[in-house]
Amino acid sequence: MATTKTTVGDIDPEVLRFTAGEDRTWDRELVEADCIGTAAHVVMLSRMDVDPPVIGTGECDAVIEALKDIIRADRAGKFRISEQDQDVHLAVERRLTRELGDTGRRVHTGRSRNDQSAVDLRLYTKRELLELLSETARLAGTLLDWGRERRDVPMPGRTHMQPAMPSSLGLWASAFAEGLLDDLDLLMHVYGTNDRCPLGAAASYGVPLPLDRELTSRLLGFSSPVHNVLHANHTRGKLESLVLAALSQVMLTVSRLSQDLMLFTMPELGYVQLPDDFCTGSSIMPQKRNPDVLELVRARTAGVLSAAGSAAEIMRGLPSGYNRDVQESKGALIKGLADTRACVRILQPLIAGMREDRDALLRGFTPGIFATDRALELVGEGVPFREAYRRVRRELRELDGRDPEEAVKIKDHAGAPAGLDWKVYRKRVRAAERFVRNHTTAFNDAVSDLLKAPWPELAPQSGDRKGAGKGV
Amino acid sequence: MATTKTTVGDIDPEVLRFTAGEDRTWDRELVEADCIGTAAHVVMLSRMDVDPPVIGTGECDAVIEALKDIIRADRAGKFRISEQDQDVHLAVERRLTRELGDTGRRVHTGRSRNDQSAVDLRLYTKRELLELLSETARLAGTLLDWGRERRDVPMPGRTHMQPAMPSSLGLWASAFAEGLLDDLDLLMHVYGTNDRCPLGAAASYGVPLPLDRELTSRLLGFSSPVHNVLHANHTRGKLESLVLAALSQVMLTVSRLSQDLMLFTMPELGYVQLPDDFCTGSSIMPQKRNPDVLELVRARTAGVLSAAGSAAEIMRGLPSGYNRDVQESKGALIKGLADTRACVRILQPLIAGMREDRDALLRGFTPGIFATDRALELVGEGVPFREAYRRVRRELRELDGRDPEEAVKIKDHAGAPAGLDWKVYRKRVRAAERFVRNHTTAFNDAVSDLLKAPWPELAPQSGDRKGAGKGV
Amino acid sequence: MATTKTTVGDIDPEVLRFTAGEDRTWDRELVEADCIGTAAHVVMLSRMDVDPPVIGTGECDAVIEALKDIIRADRAGKFRISEQDQDVHLAVERRLTRELGDTGRRVHTGRSRNDQSAVDLRLYTKRELLELLSETARLAGTLLDWGRERRDVPMPGRTHMQPAMPSSLGLWASAFAEGLLDDLDLLMHVYGTNDRCPLGAAASYGVPLPLDRELTSRLLGFSSPVHNVLHANHTRGKLESLVLAALSQVMLTVSRLSQDLMLFTMPELGYVQLPDDFCTGSSIMPQKRNPDVLELVRARTAGVLSAAGSAAEIMRGLPSGYNRDVQESKGALIKGLADTRACVRILQPLIAGMREDRDALLRGFTPGIFATDRALELVGEGVPFREAYRRVRRELRELDGRDPEEAVKIKDHAGAPAGLDWKVYRKRVRAAERFVRNHTTAFNDAVSDLLKAPWPELAPQSGDRKGAGKGV
Amino acid sequence: MATTKTTVGDIDPEVLRFTAGEDRTWDRELVEADCIGTAAHVVMLSRMDVDPPVIGTGECDAVIEALKDIIRADRAGKFRISEQDQDVHLAVERRLTRELGDTGRRVHTGRSRNDQSAVDLRLYTKRELLELLSETARLAGTLLDWGRERRDVPMPGRTHMQPAMPSSLGLWASAFAEGLLDDLDLLMHVYGTNDRCPLGAAASYGVPLPLDRELTSRLLGFSSPVHNVLHANHTRGKLESLVLAALSQVMLTVSRLSQDLMLFTMPELGYVQLPDDFCTGSSIMPQKRNPDVLELVRARTAGVLSAAGSAAEIMRGLPSGYNRDVQESKGALIKGLADTRACVRILQPLIAGMREDRDALLRGFTPGIFATDRALELVGEGVPFREAYRRVRRELRELDGRDPEEAVKIKDHAGAPAGLDWKVYRKRVRAAERFVRNHTTAFNDAVSDLLKAPWPELAPQSGDRKGAGKGV
Repeated sequence: MATTKTTVGDIDPEVLRFTAGEDRTWDRELVEADCIGTAAHVVMLSRMDVDPPVIGTGECDAVIEALKDIIRADRAGKFRISEQDQDVHLAVERRLTRELGDTGRRVHTGRSRNDQSAVDLRLYTKRELLELLSETARLAGTLLDWGRERRDVPMPGRTHMQPAMPSSLGLWASAFAEGLLDDLDLLMHVYGTNDRCPLGAAASYGVPLPLDRELTSRLLGFSSPVHNVLHANHTRGKLESLVLAALSQVMLTVSRLSQDLMLFTMPELGYVQLPDDFCTGSSIMPQKRNPDVLELVRARTAGVLSAAGSAAEIMRGLPSGYNRDVQESKGALIKGLADTRACVRILQPLIAGMREDRDALLRGFTPGIFATDRALELVGEGVPFREAYRRVRRELRELDGRDPEEAVKIKDHAGAPAGLDWKVYRKRVRAAERFVRNHTTAFNDAVSDLLKAPWPELAPQSGDRKGAGKGV
Repeated sequence: MATTKTTVGDIDPEVLRFTAGEDRTWDRELVEADCIGTAAHVVMLSRMDVDPPVIGTGECDAVIEALKDIIRADRAGKFRISEQDQDVHLAVERRLTRELGDTGRRVHTGRSRNDQSAVDLRLYTKRELLELLSETARLAGTLLDWGRERRDVPMPGRTHMQPAMPSSLGLWASAFAEGLLDDLDLLMHVYGTNDRCPLGAAASYGVPLPLDRELTSRLLGFSSPVHNVLHANHTRGKLESLVLAALSQVMLTVSRLSQDLMLFTMPELGYVQLPDDFCTGSSIMPQKRNPDVLELVRARTAGVLSAAGSAAEIMRGLPSGYNRDVQESKGALIKGLADTRACVRILQPLIAGMREDRDALLRGFTPGIFATDRALELVGEGVPFREAYRRVRRELRELDGRDPEEAVKIKDHAGAPAGLDWKVYRKRVRAAERFVRNHTTAFNDAVSDLLKAPWPELAPQSGDRKGAGKGV
Repeated sequence: MATTKTTVGDIDPEVLRFTAGEDRTWDRELVEADCIGTAAHVVMLSRMDVDPPVIGTGECDAVIEALKDIIRADRAGKFRISEQDQDVHLAVERRLTRELGDTGRRVHTGRSRNDQSAVDLRLYTKRELLELLSETARLAGTLLDWGRERRDVPMPGRTHMQPAMPSSLGLWASAFAEGLLDDLDLLMHVYGTNDRCPLGAAASYGVPLPLDRELTSRLLGFSSPVHNVLHANHTRGKLESLVLAALSQVMLTVSRLSQDLMLFTMPELGYVQLPDDFCTGSSIMPQKRNPDVLELVRARTAGVLSAAGSAAEIMRGLPSGYNRDVQESKGALIKGLADTRACVRILQPLIAGMREDRDALLRGFTPGIFATDRALELVGEGVPFREAYRRVRRELRELDGRDPEEAVKIKDHAGAPAGLDWKVYRKRVRAAERFVRNHTTAFNDAVSDLLKAPWPELAPQSGDRKGAGKGV
Repeated sequence: MATTKTTVGDIDPEVLRFTAGEDRTWDRELVEADCIGTAAHVVMLSRMDVDPPVIGTGECDAVIEALKDIIRADRAGKFRISEQDQDVHLAVERRLTRELGDTGRRVHTGRSRNDQSAVDLRLYTKRELLELLSETARLAGTLLDWGRERRDVPMPGRTHMQPAMPSSLGLWASAFAEGLLDDLDLLMHVYGTNDRCPLGAAASYGVPLPLDRELTSRLLGFSSPVHNVLHANHTRGKLESLVLAALSQVMLTVSRLSQDLMLFTMPELGYVQLPDDFCTGSSIMPQKRNPDVLELVRARTAGVLSAAGSAAEIMRGLPSGYNRDVQESKGALIKGLADTRACVRILQPLIAGMREDRDALLRGFTPGIFATDRALELVGEGVPFREAYRRVRRELRELDGRDPEEAVKIKDHAGAPAGLDWKVYRKRVRAAERFVRNHTTAFNDAVSDLLKAPWPELAPQSGDRKGAGKGV
C-alpha cells in the first residue's frame, strides 16, 4: 500500500475516479507489455555498475518469475487492476511488493510511471501494427486475386457518380489493392518510428544513476533508444497521433471501397452480390438485406480520423515535460488500432466471397461511355483533340452498339485496364509479409531471451497448459 | 473559346462562380507546375509511336517555347487566369491555342484536367517539401547550436507545469531539435510518397493510346509513375491529407516550443528574453511587449491540424473515380504548406537571437526540485526506492542549498542533461541537408533537360533579366 | 504614423508580415462595421460626463462625417488597408487622424483594438445571419412548394441505400424543409447570442472612465451589452465557434439533400433531372453532365464543420484575457458564413428548376418494398406482428403488382406521406421571415440615427450616387 | 428467439460482433428509456381505433407491469443484454415475449428499432441535460459566491499571458460564471430541440396504421412530435452533433478556467491554492503536488470537441433514410454527456475550496500594469490619447508605488471590476434552476402517469426497497 501515485486517504475518492477515468479499462490491454517492460528494467538495474547493487541477480530472477506469473494470471483472466491500484503500473508493482517484499520496492528505482506508460504503449503498438500489417497485406492479396480472375470483365467506370468510361473489375479491385500497398509503406515507416525505446526518461529529465538505456532497448527488441529524455516524453501523444494518422490512411482506402460496394449492391446497379452471411435484416421490413458492415466501415473511418485529430490537439498547446493530458490519447490509440484491424479483417472474407453479375455490369454501359474512345479514334485520323471532342459531342447517339470487352482491351498502356502489372503487385505484397515475419520473429526472440521462456507461448509454470496465449 | 470545361453560355454564371470558388486563387500558385507538366506530356505525345503522330517534333518545340513564355510572364506577374478560364489548366491551354492554333488543340490529347491537377499538385508539393525540409533542418541546427552553447546551464525541469527536477537549457533545446529530426524523417518518407507521377490516368480509366507513362514520369524527375490509373485518381485528397498529417507533426513540435517560450518570458519566470524585434505592443497599454509570433504559431497549428482532418474527411465517403469534392482539398494543402513553412522560418531567427537570464533560471530552483536526487542517494545507500521516497517526502525542507549545476552534471546517462550526444544530432541534420541537395539538383536537372533551358533560372528570351525566379 | 499597434521601425518587417497573416484580407469585409462601431464609441465619448470632455460635440460630428466618407470610399472600392496599417482598425484611425488631427488622436480613448475586433465581428455576423436566415427560409419555402405540388407522387423510400418502403416526393422534399426550419430556430437563437455589445471591455479589464456601455449598445442596435468585461473578451473565438456550429447544422441538411440528388440523378435511378444550367461537362469526356454543384456542397460542408471545430480548438487551452490566437478564428467565421450562404443560395434555383421522372420513380418499386405494408395487413387480421413478419418474409414474391399510389395514400397518420401538415410548415417559414424583417428594420433604424443618414443607402455627400450599397 | 434484427444462424458470428461493436455497452445506459418508450407505444396501440385492437387493455397493463419489472431488475443490476440480443431493444422485446407470449409479439407493431433508438436517446439526453443544467448552474453559483466575497481583491489582469492591467478576483471569477450563464442559455435552447418525440417514424416512412403520434409524445412528456417521419430519422446524428456542440461550449468555459488555475498555482505566481484533496503526487518525485484534475478537464475538452465534429461528419455524406452509420454517434453522445457532467461537477468543490494568497497577488503588480491608467489620467487633463500613450511609454518607471486596490476601485463602469452587477447574475442562475425544476417535475409526472407508479422512485413490486433509483 506504500507504492502509491497519490497517497490514498489524502485524496478525495471522487477525484480519484475522475482522474482515472477510463484508464483502468484501457490498461487491461497493457498488462503483458507492462510486465515485459518491467523485466527489462530490472535486468538492467541488476547489471548496473553500482555498489551496493540496486537489485541482486537472485532478486532479478525472482522478479522475472513473478512477472511471468502475472502474465499467466492475466491470460487466464485472473489479474485485476483495482480502483486503489489506479492503473496497470501500480497493480503490477504492488503485486511484486506483496510477493517479494523489499525486492518489489526496488523495482521502480530510476523509473517513472510515465516511463512505463510510454514503453508499454510502444510495445503494444508494435504488436498491433505487425498484426495490422499482416491483415492489410492479406486484404490486398485478396483484392488482387479477386481482380485478377476478373481482369477482363468490363464494368462501367464512373466519375461524379455518373458513367464515364469503360473500366474493368480488375482495374477496380487492384486500385484498392494498390491503395493498401501504399498504406503498407506508410505503416512500415511508422512502425520504425515506434520501434524505439523511451525507457530511462524517468520524469523527463533523467536520473543520477548510470542507467544503461542501450541495454533495455536491446532487451526489448527495439531498434534503438529515443535519445533525449525530454524528447522521449514529448513523443507521448505525438506518436499516438502519427500512428492514428497512418491508420486513417488505411481507413480512407477501405471506406471508399465500402462506399463503392454500397452503390454496386443497390438493385438498380446490381454489379456485385455480397456473401449472404454479411447481410443483415430489419426489425420491421421483412424483405431487407442490408450492407451494415460496409456502412459501419464508413462510419468508423470518421471515428479513426477524429481520434487522429484529437490525439494531436491534446498535445498542441502543452508546455514541455509530462502533462496529465496525454492520458487521454491512450484510449484513442487503442480503440483506433482495434477498429482499423476489425475493419480490415472483416472485409477480407467479404471480398473473397463476393460475386459479380456480368449481365448487370454490361447493362451499365450507356452509349455515352464510349465517347472519349471515339474522340481519340478521330485523333488517330489526324483531327485535333478539341475538334474531335466537339464533333463526338454532337453525335453521342452514334456510339450505340460498341463492345465493352473490346473497349477494355484497347487500353493497354501501363496501369490501364489491359496494362496492369500483376507481378509487381505480388512482389509488394510479399515484401510486406516478409517485413512482418522478420520483425515478429526478432521481437519474440528478444522477449524469449528476456523472460527465459519461449514467447509468446510462455510455458506454464506447472502442468497447466491454459497459459498459451496471444503475446503482447 | 472552344476548349471549355463547361460550355460557357450554357451554364449559369452564378453556377460557374460557385463551382470555381477559390480555385483561381490557389491556381495562381500552380502556373509553373502546369507548364512543366504540359511540356512533359507534349514531349511524350511527340515520341508516341502512332501514325500520323499526334504532335510533330516541330510542334512540340513550339509548345515548349510557348510554355516558357508563359512561365516568364507569370514570373513577371503578367499571366492572368480569367473568370472564363476557370482554372490554370484552361488558361494555359487557351493561350497555347491562341498562339499555336491546331497545335494547341492537340495538347490535351489523352489527358484530363484531373490528370493535370494531380501532377501540378505533386510538382508543387515536391518543391515545397524540399524547402520545408531545408528550413526545418536549419531550425533544428539553430536549436542545437543554441542548446550546445548552454549545455551546462541549469534550468528547472517541469511536469504538470510545476517544478519537477533539475534540467538544463541544453536538454530543453535539443529535445525540440530531436523532435524536428524525427519530423524530418517523416517528411522524407512523405516526400517519397509524393514523388510519383500520376500522368496518364486521364479520367481515371486510361485511354486507348500507347501513352508512355514511364517517360513522362522520368521527364518530370519523378521516381516512378503511380501504376493503376484509378488509384492515381484516388490519391487525390488522400495524398493531401497525408502531407498535411506530416506537416501537423512539425507544427506540434514548434507549437509546444512556442508554448514553452510564452511561459518562459512571463516576468514571473523570466528564463529567456526574445529579440526586441519579435515583440509587439498594444494599442491601449503603453508598457506591453507581447509574444504574438508565438501565439500565432500555436493557433496556426490548430489550423494545420484541422486542414489535415478536413482533407481526409472530404475523401472518406466518396465512391471511386473522380469526384469534384477533391477540389476543396487543394487550398488546404497549399495553405498548410505555406503556414508550416512560415512558422518554421520565423522561429529560426527568434531562437538564434534569444538570450537566457541565468539568475532567473537559478531562482526557479525550489528545494523540492532535488527530492528525487535525494531519494536516489538513499537508494545508493541501500534503501529500497519506495522507502527512500517516503523518507524524503517527510524531509523536503532539508533539500535547501543544493547546487543546480552539480545536479545537472550527475545525470550523465545517455540522453540525460549531461549525457547528450551532440555528434549524432549533427549527423542527422547533415543527412537531411544532403537529402534536400540531392533531390533539388535531380529535379532541376530534369526540368532543365525538359525545357532545354537552365532551371530554375530560366534564361529570359530577350535581354530582360527579371524573369529569374523561384522555380515551381 | 504615431497610432501604431507596434512601433514600425522597431519591428522586423517579416515579423509584421507573419503576424498579419491573412488578416488584412479578412478585414476588407469589416470596414463598414468598424466605422459604425467607431461612430457609436465617439458619440458615447462626447456625451460622457467628464470635464474637460474627451471629445466635443462638434468634434463628434466631424468624426461621423469622416467615417461616412470612409464608408463611401469603401463602397466605391477606394479605401485601402496598407501593410503599415496592419488592420482595418488602424487604417480607419489613421485616416481620421490625418484628416482631423488631435480629434483623430482622441478617438481611441477608452477602447482597445480587441474591443473593435469584437464589435466589428458581431456587427458583421449580425448582418450575415440575417441574410442567411432569409435565404434559408427561401430554400425551405421552395422545397415546400416543390414537394406540395408532388405530394402524391410515389417514390421508393430507402434505408441503408436499399429500397425500403413506399414514400412520396412530398415526404422527401418536406423532410429537408423541416430540417431547415429546425436549423432556422437554432440560427435565431444564435442570432440572439451574437446580438450583444462587447464595447467597453478595452484590454479585457475595463478603464477608469465612466464609459456608458448601455448607450453604445443601444446606438448600435444591440439588445444589451455583454456585462463582464473579461467575459466580453472570452466570447471571442467561442462565439465564432458557436456560430459555425449553427452553420454546420444548416450545412448538414443541405449536404444530405445534395447527396440524395447525386444518387437520384444517376441514370440507373433517374428520379429527377437537374436544370441544364446546373450541370457541368468534362475536359476529356464529350458526353458528361456532372452535378458539380452538389458535390461541392457536400465537400464544403466538411470545410464548415472543420472550421467550427478549429475555432473552438484555438480557444480550448488559452488562459484568460486577450491572446493573439483569436485572430485565427476570424477567417474561419467569415469564410464559413460566406460558404454556407453560397450553398443555400445556389440550391434554391436548382430545386425550383428540378423535374421528376414519374416513370423512373415507379420503376424503382420492387415488390419487396411493400413487405411491411403486407405484414401490417396481417396484423389487422389479428396476427401478432412478429408472426406476420415471418410469414411475409417467406412470401416476398406475392407482393408483386401492388399499387404505389395506394401505398402512399394509406400512410395518413401525422407526419406520414399522406398526413403532412403543409399549413404548419408555412407558418414556420413566415415566422422566420418576420424575424428577419423586424431585426433588419431595427438595425437599419439604429444605424440611420447614429450616422444621421438613411442606412444602408447612405446618401452620397455630393451628387455621386454610386455609394448606395449593401450595408455592413 | 424469433424477434431478430438478423436471423441469427444465417449470419456470421464475427459479422454480428463487428456490427454490434460497442453498442451493447452504450445500450446499458438506455434500459429505462427503452422501457418507458415502449410503454408509451403500447398504451397508444391499445387506444388505437382499429378492430380488432392491436393490443387489448388488459394486455397493455400486463406489458407495463413487465416493463416496470425490467426497470427494477436493471436498477438491481440484474438485467442483461446478451450477445444474441445485440441491443437493448431486442433484449426488452424478447423478455416481454418470453413472459407474455403473443402479447409480446405484438409490441413492435408499427414501430422500427430505429424509432426506439431515436426515442431512447432523446429521453436519455433530456434527463442528462437537466442534470447538466443543474450542475452548471451550481458551478456558476459557486464561482459567483467565491468572486463576490473577493470582489475587491486586486489581481494582475493578463493579456498575451503577460501582465496587462489591474483586475480583481471578482472580475475573474464572475467572467467564468457569466460564460456558464451564456452556456446555460444555449443548453436550454438545445433542450427544447431535443424535447420532441420521434416515435411513429418507423423505418422513416410511416406505417399504414392510424398511429396517434400526439398521444405518444404527450405520454412521454415531450413538448410535441417531430412532424415529418423522414425528418425524424434525419435528426439522428444531427441532434447528437448539436447537443455535443452545446456541450463543447460548456467545456470551452471550464477548460479555460482550468488553464488559468494551472498558471495561478505555479509557485512563481502562487495566486491561489487548490484544496489538498484535489492534488496528486508523483511515482518518482516525492515533493509533487500536481493539478491533474485541471489537466484532465483541458484534455477532455478536446475529446468533447472532437466528438461533436465526428458526430456531424458521420452524417455529412449520407443519403436520406436510415443508415447504420448513425449507430456510431451514440457512444459519442453518451460519453460526451458523461464527461461534460463529470468536469462541471468536479470543479464545483474545487472552486469552493480554493484559497487565494493576497500577498502573491499583490507581488504580481509590476509598475507597467498601471500604464494605461496613467495614460487615461493624462487624457483627463486634455491630452489626446495617442499623445498620452507615447508619453507614458517613455516614463514607465514613474508608475512605481501605485495602489492596486485603488486601481480596481476606479474602474466602476458597468461590467468593470468595480461595476459588476451581482444581482443580475443571481437572477440568471435562479432562472436556470427554475427551468430545471419545472421540466423535471413535468417529466416525472408524465412518466408516473404512464407507468401508474411514482417516478423516478418506482415503488418496488414487493417489499424490496432497493429499486429506488436514478430515473432515466
